[in-house]
Amino acid sequence: MTSPETETETGTGTGTGTGIDTDTYSGGNATIDHGLLAPGRAGSPAEAATSDTAFLRALLDAEAALTRAQASLGHAPAEAARAVTAATASARFDAGDLAHRARGGGNPVIPLVADLTAAVPDEFGPYVHRGATSQDILDTATMLVAARTVDLVLADLRRTERALSRLAAAHRDTVMPGRTLTQHAVPTTFGLKAAGWRSLVLDARDRLRGVRAGLPVQLGGAAGTLAAFGRDGDAGDPDTPLRLTAAYARETGLAPPDLPWHTLRAPVADLAGALAFAAGALGKTAADVLTLSRTEIAELSEGTGGDSSAMPHKRNPVRATLIAAAARRAPGLAATLYASMVAEDERPAGAWHAEWEPLRDLLRLVGGAARDGAELAEGLQVHPDAMRGHLHLTAGLIVSERLAAALAPALGRARAKALLTDLAARARTEGRTLAELLAAQPELDGLALDIDDLTDPTRYTGAAGILTDRALERP
Amino acid sequence: MTSPETETETGTGTGTGTGIDTDTYSGGNATIDHGLLAPGRAGSPAEAATSDTAFLRALLDAEAALTRAQASLGHAPAEAARAVTAATASARFDAGDLAHRARGGGNPVIPLVADLTAAVPDEFGPYVHRGATSQDILDTATMLVAARTVDLVLADLRRTERALSRLAAAHRDTVMPGRTLTQHAVPTTFGLKAAGWRSLVLDARDRLRGVRAGLPVQLGGAAGTLAAFGRDGDAGDPDTPLRLTAAYARETGLAPPDLPWHTLRAPVADLAGALAFAAGALGKTAADVLTLSRTEIAELSEGTGGDSSAMPHKRNPVRATLIAAAARRAPGLAATLYASMVAEDERPAGAWHAEWEPLRDLLRLVGGAARDGAELAEGLQVHPDAMRGHLHLTAGLIVSERLAAALAPALGRARAKALLTDLAARARTEGRTLAELLAAQPELDGLALDIDDLTDPTRYTGAAGILTDRALERP
Amino acid sequence: MTSPETETETGTGTGTGTGIDTDTYSGGNATIDHGLLAPGRAGSPAEAATSDTAFLRALLDAEAALTRAQASLGHAPAEAARAVTAATASARFDAGDLAHRARGGGNPVIPLVADLTAAVPDEFGPYVHRGATSQDILDTATMLVAARTVDLVLADLRRTERALSRLAAAHRDTVMPGRTLTQHAVPTTFGLKAAGWRSLVLDARDRLRGVRAGLPVQLGGAAGTLAAFGRDGDAGDPDTPLRLTAAYARETGLAPPDLPWHTLRAPVADLAGALAFAAGALGKTAADVLTLSRTEIAELSEGTGGDSSAMPHKRNPVRATLIAAAARRAPGLAATLYASMVAEDERPAGAWHAEWEPLRDLLRLVGGAARDGAELAEGLQVHPDAMRGHLHLTAGLIVSERLAAALAPALGRARAKALLTDLAARARTEGRTLAELLAAQPELDGLALDIDDLTDPTRYTGAAGILTDRALERP
Amino acid sequence: MTSPETETETGTGTGTGTGIDTDTYSGGNATIDHGLLAPGRAGSPAEAATSDTAFLRALLDAEAALTRAQASLGHAPAEAARAVTAATASARFDAGDLAHRARGGGNPVIPLVADLTAAVPDEFGPYVHRGATSQDILDTATMLVAARTVDLVLADLRRTERALSRLAAAHRDTVMPGRTLTQHAVPTTFGLKAAGWRSLVLDARDRLRGVRAGLPVQLGGAAGTLAAFGRDGDAGDPDTPLRLTAAYARETGLAPPDLPWHTLRAPVADLAGALAFAAGALGKTAADVLTLSRTEIAELSEGTGGDSSAMPHKRNPVRATLIAAAARRAPGLAATLYASMVAEDERPAGAWHAEWEPLRDLLRLVGGAARDGAELAEGLQVHPDAMRGHLHLTAGLIVSERLAAALAPALGRARAKALLTDLAARARTEGRTLAELLAAQPELDGLALDIDDLTDPTRYTGAAGILTDRALERP
Repeated sequence: MTSPETETETGTGTGTGTGIDTDTYSGGNATIDHGLLAPGRAGSPAEAATSDTAFLRALLDAEAALTRAQASLGHAPAEAARAVTAATASARFDAGDLAHRARGGGNPVIPLVADLTAAVPDEFGPYVHRGATSQDILDTATMLVAARTVDLVLADLRRTERALSRLAAAHRDTVMPGRTLTQHAVPTTFGLKAAGWRSLVLDARDRLRGVRAGLPVQLGGAAGTLAAFGRDGDAGDPDTPLRLTAAYARETGLAPPDLPWHTLRAPVADLAGALAFAAGALGKTAADVLTLSRTEIAELSEGTGGDSSAMPHKRNPVRATLIAAAARRAPGLAATLYASMVAEDERPAGAWHAEWEPLRDLLRLVGGAARDGAELAEGLQVHPDAMRGHLHLTAGLIVSERLAAALAPALGRARAKALLTDLAARARTEGRTLAELLAAQPELDGLALDIDDLTDPTRYTGAAGILTDRALERP
Repeated sequence: MTSPETETETGTGTGTGTGIDTDTYSGGNATIDHGLLAPGRAGSPAEAATSDTAFLRALLDAEAALTRAQASLGHAPAEAARAVTAATASARFDAGDLAHRARGGGNPVIPLVADLTAAVPDEFGPYVHRGATSQDILDTATMLVAARTVDLVLADLRRTERALSRLAAAHRDTVMPGRTLTQHAVPTTFGLKAAGWRSLVLDARDRLRGVRAGLPVQLGGAAGTLAAFGRDGDAGDPDTPLRLTAAYARETGLAPPDLPWHTLRAPVADLAGALAFAAGALGKTAADVLTLSRTEIAELSEGTGGDSSAMPHKRNPVRATLIAAAARRAPGLAATLYASMVAEDERPAGAWHAEWEPLRDLLRLVGGAARDGAELAEGLQVHPDAMRGHLHLTAGLIVSERLAAALAPALGRARAKALLTDLAARARTEGRTLAELLAAQPELDGLALDIDDLTDPTRYTGAAGILTDRALERP
Repeated sequence: MTSPETETETGTGTGTGTGIDTDTYSGGNATIDHGLLAPGRAGSPAEAATSDTAFLRALLDAEAALTRAQASLGHAPAEAARAVTAATASARFDAGDLAHRARGGGNPVIPLVADLTAAVPDEFGPYVHRGATSQDILDTATMLVAARTVDLVLADLRRTERALSRLAAAHRDTVMPGRTLTQHAVPTTFGLKAAGWRSLVLDARDRLRGVRAGLPVQLGGAAGTLAAFGRDGDAGDPDTPLRLTAAYARETGLAPPDLPWHTLRAPVADLAGALAFAAGALGKTAADVLTLSRTEIAELSEGTGGDSSAMPHKRNPVRATLIAAAARRAPGLAATLYASMVAEDERPAGAWHAEWEPLRDLLRLVGGAARDGAELAEGLQVHPDAMRGHLHLTAGLIVSERLAAALAPALGRARAKALLTDLAARARTEGRTLAELLAAQPELDGLALDIDDLTDPTRYTGAAGILTDRALERP
Repeated sequence: MTSPETETETGTGTGTGTGIDTDTYSGGNATIDHGLLAPGRAGSPAEAATSDTAFLRALLDAEAALTRAQASLGHAPAEAARAVTAATASARFDAGDLAHRARGGGNPVIPLVADLTAAVPDEFGPYVHRGATSQDILDTATMLVAARTVDLVLADLRRTERALSRLAAAHRDTVMPGRTLTQHAVPTTFGLKAAGWRSLVLDARDRLRGVRAGLPVQLGGAAGTLAAFGRDGDAGDPDTPLRLTAAYARETGLAPPDLPWHTLRAPVADLAGALAFAAGALGKTAADVLTLSRTEIAELSEGTGGDSSAMPHKRNPVRATLIAAAARRAPGLAATLYASMVAEDERPAGAWHAEWEPLRDLLRLVGGAARDGAELAEGLQVHPDAMRGHLHLTAGLIVSERLAAALAPALGRARAKALLTDLAARARTEGRTLAELLAAQPELDGLALDIDDLTDPTRYTGAAGILTDRALERP
């Protein structure tokens, strides 16, 4: 704040510097994030599962699992494996301190290895991080964090789909206006709408499950050849490195990859796609809830309305709002991850580093949105009366498609359309319903038309019921 | 150019207006794109498969298939189906004219239906587009175009993976520097590198195949209830709409969806993900080729170098450059498509319209990149001598990891590291090799170290060969 | 379609191949785009100004201007300048053919130079493209196209802001519900809303004007040193290259840059930002129009409603829909352009090539959206009665903020809030207005409250009028 | 971790659950971020200036300034202003607790107002947040944070440009290969390259300064009409609301806006553009440093090389790597912010909420990259010998453009080109230099060519020196 630059920039204003004590900035706490800007994820299971603490835990898990895997093949003493595992469980590691020391080499594993080595008895030090590169550990830890978080997301998606299933079944025959390009089109049912939301949630679940099942360990060593693994001085069985990868996978619960994937980023890209999909799936529901919650529409409302700082009586659709915000952010983050597939050489200078925070952000956003989605679905209030009432807002035009089809055989397609266009205009200007106008139409006299049935919006829902039934059969 | 705005903006410069005749702008040809800015796709099969002509073809195919499907269920006369199919094959439709008339309703299907109706005998007019909404036809056509283009992409990916397979096998033991964060790390092989490229190509293939197999028809009618389908005046079998969807799928060769997906955009999102993945997969190879083609490195060169307008003797890695450009663009397009999942109501105002060109662009970019990828892989020239030569650029430091491991048992880990750090510095300043310096090191005298073997980079490729073999077994 | 790949992929379906004749794909017309998928830009001035024809025109303008600039400094005969200029005006160049030949070197300038050289008398051939690199010409042409298109956009923005200005003035005191998080909050005016839209349009105008004024020529030669310019065998005045750049700027009407900007992409990034801003500005208006056009709200309607293929009587807000679609696409394209600033070396392998189509797409999208914005603003129908009617939808709660402030001095802030919360609940359940309930409230008896005034939404518009007046003063 | 979902997903693997104690996740510390995944910003001034603590500080500053502004107009007692200001300075507010309570209404201002009100004497409670909406405070706080952070960025950009200025001046005549599409093209100088980097940094500075100067306060009240401001029961001077905005601007040091900008997001979009530009500008330098640091090229090296966890002797270009990572992420974040301009109504449901974290991330990324950029530029080591040595890698072809121009007058353009193409091929295959081959060429005997001069790369740097001088004059 006291730089000449600042002086030049800020002119006479003193306010932008008010109360900022640069000293407090360099302190520990001042650089910490608590989620103040992230109500969408605050307090969610996914937030905890993706915190720095959780990443630190996963990094330590990855190191311990590696030593255990080596011990299982006789490349390290069993005591070393126990000592390293114990140290990762009991020793204290300081995420803030590691963050600062990460600047030297550009990643947090380098200082962590130093601290972990110091935390085990000297004789076991050589078995810490033995043969590995930083990326082996950080990638494996990231997959662990992803696996743990995706499991939480899946649990919330399950809650969501169950609640939507109940809503769809309960409202299988609740008729409401179908809306296209913002205008009433033809009737639909809320059951079909909720079944559609559910089908997207199930699609998201399937994609996340598929990706989750294949999340791999990373093990390649300095340049992906696994050259530094194996027993000392023993080139040994050429299959040793592959057996080590398999053992590492067993110890972590992740999958064994075909190849080290330092610059073959399929797992990250797949996560990006599945998470962006999930955000979009939940975002679709939120968009509909926001629309149908509008004061003028009020066909839906959230179970617990949100507060307002200015208007105490106002109830805002906060859950849908926060999901909508997450859905706006996910695609850009996924794009960064897809772009990081373009990673040069055996390990890249930037593409890898650019993945860490966006992947975490995606996991958090989707984790938060899944929680909000579950709360939204479980608490959603449906107002069938409002839905039914709106069917008449267009004075019968909502069934004009049906009438056009019914009149065409007798009048011809063109005349039927012209007549309805004319009556539609009159309905608007004269304030009468289409049914009334049709009944007074001499050219329809000879026809055995059941005007009441034909103009009843609740009789024109097509296959909505059957589609809903069938969609709900999907497990 | 003659508006007051222009005068104000351009000042005295006349050049920006030079040669622009506004009249020619309103003519037909002046608004046409030929691919002048798109060398990556110019002349590719994917370009043709995604042109306006191809979309027009697919729109007509979708209309004809719908009438045939209806005829197969007895909802339309067989003659109508024949007449509509014949009209789509023989009548002339003008893409440019349709484009202009599409402005009225915001999509090209509305004018196309008018033209197609006019092109069939009057009595069959009612069976054109019967019961459908514009989005049914445009979405189905888009899936047809996607299916056709993805097939072309898959064919080029097959060419690519075969060529890479040959390269990987031929260079299984061609040793080269492994590079990390731009610096030589430890040795690797070109076989492993090519096998890695291939594995990403196979991953892209698998994702595209999976999406391709499920591309669905769209059939929902005005608001997704299928209400306007079925035989006149016959509510009929409640399963009729679903049987119609199945028949439509048969007629088009696409899959039958569970639900109309006007605003459940899983198919588009899945295409976005698989295509962005493919672009990234090819982009990884291109990034490596660009690096290894650099004048100073020259370990690879493209089969046919690109021209330069200024320096006739220069040979540019043009195929890799164009792939790299495609890989830079794909993620942003995929992001737009993922964001379009947030589509309100039964059919949305904007989210759907925002998909059309980005999806086509993605198909084109990946189609072009797949062609360039095949040409690149099939023509790639490998220069093993250059690779081998570079192994010595660091005076032996490329095996420092191995030496540290070998010396540690005798000297201790810390002393081994300190010694090597010291010798590395001396190697740089004295212009000697690490092998020479090690041989002159008294503290190593008693040890039975095979210095020549230990410092031979070609003896330190770890599991590169085995990994390559195993990766090439993947079909 | 006959590849084994296809066979494997498509299974028994024959439909996806129906009617596709691969032969027609390789023909000229089959690869042409007419805007079939682009109703947002079809027929717009910006479409013509950004077509392949327009780019070809600009490339030729750039070549001719370069020779003229050289002639003006005595580096080329005046006859050569005339001959080149004449050839660019009269000779025929084939964009489609150039597109295909562009694949060799990766850009269309290389074949264009060959064709242009062939089109001038032999003795002037050496003065075509003399000393330049492809990127000099393509970048300069892109700036010409950008300048010409931005001028068109500015003209449409001017139409838009004038129409919005008229609307804001006419509806300065038209009261309507202010809506926040989809719910009625407190009253506002349509005048203030329209004035806000206009202010964003003016902001977009200012940013585009600023960028437009500085669009530079590109002149650097093979690697940005201008080494190949100057008179033969005459190193000459060291300032010569800079004077040539200035002359080139004069001939094109563009600005002279400080440095060749082959990999210093400020002009492209600035265009990206200003165009994305413009798309967002128009997108804000479109979002509001879409909301306020909803069947249930109907406070606004577009001048000419859009057709529907299924429901002849339906009128869709098509202009707003197309603008909304453009606004969804622009940010991703701008992101690609910002990312292309990371361009290595003196001229990059991919980053530059990745700019061409996204920049054109952005110009087109914004050009189309600006036209639609002008049509939308000029034709917008405002329904003050609907706006006024909606003020009472919440039974008076829309003024609860005002009442809370008015009651607080007498009742205390907490009691005032509690009372209003209670009355709000009763208003909902009892179907009475807040005014009625307040009048019946004994604890307010002694207070000299003008209930009618306090609960009149039209009396609680704050500074809306003044803000509107002031905003409209901005030129 | 104990849900059936998890059981199903993880199969037999136990590792993904190892060591994760769900209890610890719900605790305070477990959800905190320290920057473990963010070495690019860890410990930077920008990190501190954008932390939750800094945002909390800015929120409190915004509240206090509002009360002071109201007091300055007589709308609140001076004692209230003092009390509120004192409370914001001395009371304790808990960012973590606020984060959790923010979920109710979807933003952190609502609970903060409650806490702040509780922290002042009862009689001043009504003057806390009086008349404001949450967005007034959060937007104003965001602008304060942006202003403070941009000032820090500007200071680091100044360091960077000064260091680059020194480098450019020192190496004005240090000749090196100019590289295009990865290949040597013609010579350039390191001075020109460094001057180009600096010019982009100055461009970034200018854009950030311009945006910084206009960052506005937000003041609109519930729906942007300022209706709840003003003295109780006194509609008063109609200009009062505008005077309050001006006073608020004075108290904060920010600019007064023309209109409340709750949904007119120019300030946020402008920040997005300027920050994405800055990231790209620094990313360009980083890309060049990464390339020129490659083991085979080694024309540049970072002052302090980065560590490697596997290879102790390896020195990585870590600063450039971290900048490159930031440059990969910035465009996607800027895209999200541009997309948020599409914000419906008077205050939106999602678009606003989607801005908070991306804008902070952008500020952090650019803040970190600016620090790394300064360190990189100040420490950069230039190796002129390596640059000079590389000029001869192509056996003289780097001056082929010059030779073609020199030979053309005597031999004709076509023959000159053919001869050089032939000699280029022979130079490659015979291992001779172009100079040797030219000297032995009989057809050149009669010509007074100074072969040594013509083939000396250091004599063919064109206007590099002049351009450098001129670029360095820019202040």
